[in-house]
Amino acid sequence: MISGKTILIAHLGYPTESFKAPMIYNPWFESKGIDAVVMPMGVKPEDYPAAIESLRKMTNLRGALVTMPHKVSTMSLVDEVTPTASIAGAANAILLRPDGTLLADQFDGAGFVRGVLRKGQALEGKRVLVSGNGGVGCAIAASLAAAGVAEMALFDNFSASSEALAGRLKTHYPNLLVSTGSNDPAGFDLIVNATPLGMKPDDPLPFDMDRVSPSTFVGEVVMKQAITPLLAAAQAKGCPIQVGTDMLFEMIPAYLEFFGFGTTTPDELRAVAQISY
Amino acid sequence: MISGKTILIAHLGYPTESFKAPMIYNPWFESKGIDAVVMPMGVKPEDYPAAIESLRKMTNLRGALVTMPHKVSTMSLVDEVTPTASIAGAANAILLRPDGTLLADQFDGAGFVRGVLRKGQALEGKRVLVSGNGGVGCAIAASLAAAGVAEMALFDNFSASSEALAGRLKTHYPNLLVSTGSNDPAGFDLIVNATPLGMKPDDPLPFDMDRVSPSTFVGEVVMKQAITPLLAAAQAKGCPIQVGTDMLFEMIPAYLEFFGFGTTTPDELRAVAQISY
Repeated sequence: MISGKTILIAHLGYPTESFKAPMIYNPWFESKGIDAVVMPMGVKPEDYPAAIESLRKMTNLRGALVTMPHKVSTMSLVDEVTPTASIAGAANAILLRPDGTLLADQFDGAGFVRGVLRKGQALEGKRVLVSGNGGVGCAIAASLAAAGVAEMALFDNFSASSEALAGRLKTHYPNLLVSTGSNDPAGFDLIVNATPLGMKPDDPLPFDMDRVSPSTFVGEVVMKQAITPLLAAAQAKGCPIQVGTDMLFEMIPAYLEFFGFGTTTPDELRAVAQISY
Repeated sequence: MISGKTILIAHLGYPTESFKAPMIYNPWFESKGIDAVVMPMGVKPEDYPAAIESLRKMTNLRGALVTMPHKVSTMSLVDEVTPTASIAGAANAILLRPDGTLLADQFDGAGFVRGVLRKGQALEGKRVLVSGNGGVGCAIAASLAAAGVAEMALFDNFSASSEALAGRLKTHYPNLLVSTGSNDPAGFDLIVNATPLGMKPDDPLPFDMDRVSPSTFVGEVVMKQAITPLLAAAQAKGCPIQVGTDMLFEMIPAYLEFFGFGTTTPDELRAVAQISY
């Protein structure tokens, strides 16, 4: 029950209609007796800097979840950025600290990696392909590098995105083998779709599935439905998979800790979440 | 259940801890299947102008409930002010219209007057005393004038507030007899406490109850408890009374209509409200 004592977590993005986090966080807060609420606030890009300055002054705000199209611009609007967010080049969480300063962090990649590890797929020393090097792709790449992969291929239709990410990765992980420019999934231990392909019914698959081995772990970030056309094709080949919302559920314990609400598990979150998968 | 489609009504004030509106509106929205939520947002006075400009751009915002200390400053921050708010000199509601402009209105006084009329107390041609000529007192005075009272006495420890209100009333209601400077409750059909007296345990009564007739209707705006010391004294004399939250419940149907959510009754609101009186 929202009251004047309720701690507010803003959920910033635009458009807001497809937001899922409120239906996960809020039932969990309620189940734990935590008086906090995640509230979607639709903010267009041109209005975002002023919105951040205004939220910074809100007396019952603890912080914000940040989603498209604000993950990159957040970086320059806060007082401090974590190393993970810095490599990812984007943030998806803002903490309003008691001194009034804002700290930005990034949990997309951590959520993806935690989900993969929980499924028994080792990452250290492995070869991975990250297709789509926008915000979420960069975040996943940063966390895969932190998890110790040996080789990473980056692909994006906008090649400059891949090159910029490759540069940041090489700076922080000089021993990581980074390649760019190919979307061929052959020979990788893990491939991940970090493009929007799969959002629309007529989208092509993000990979040539004829070139994917049954032993390749196939990860997805699209969460419009659980089994996207990519994941259906991967399952048909016998590949182990990770659905888009796994990343979401796996990152939430990290978020909750960041905001000071303790921690939890994906299973516990799924048990109370008010979304269908 | 809050989602990305939920319509946001900001509840603006500072501090937020004693806000009651969320516990009234939100259960009613839920009972009606209306996907909207009232969310407290604590904003200090110095941050309020920027907050209004930021909220104006929020894509899922329908408007705002405005409470202390922002009811007066709202007047100069919006694009248009209703006549009622203009006379009251303060606003407690802001509508974000589809064209991006903000309209401010005022329902405190309407809530008070609707409650009095619903209790069978006629107002047309009557004599009334409004003690406390700050935001809520001015709003009640404006609505009492609109309801057709014949004479109105205004009292405030800060006499300039009474004089300014008297001037606005005389401009809009040239036939209304307005007096200022006396808090003597003798001879009035209705007296209303619009001061904060009654918020603290040791507060004196706002009126000399020895001078109040049993036929005088005694209204209260303090809602810290249902029966304030003033109302207890009034009941002891046999006076008809109106508790502070009546104003709140009576004004909500007007707010809901303003925001485009249809209307309701105080009884229906009280049946679902999550507050204790």
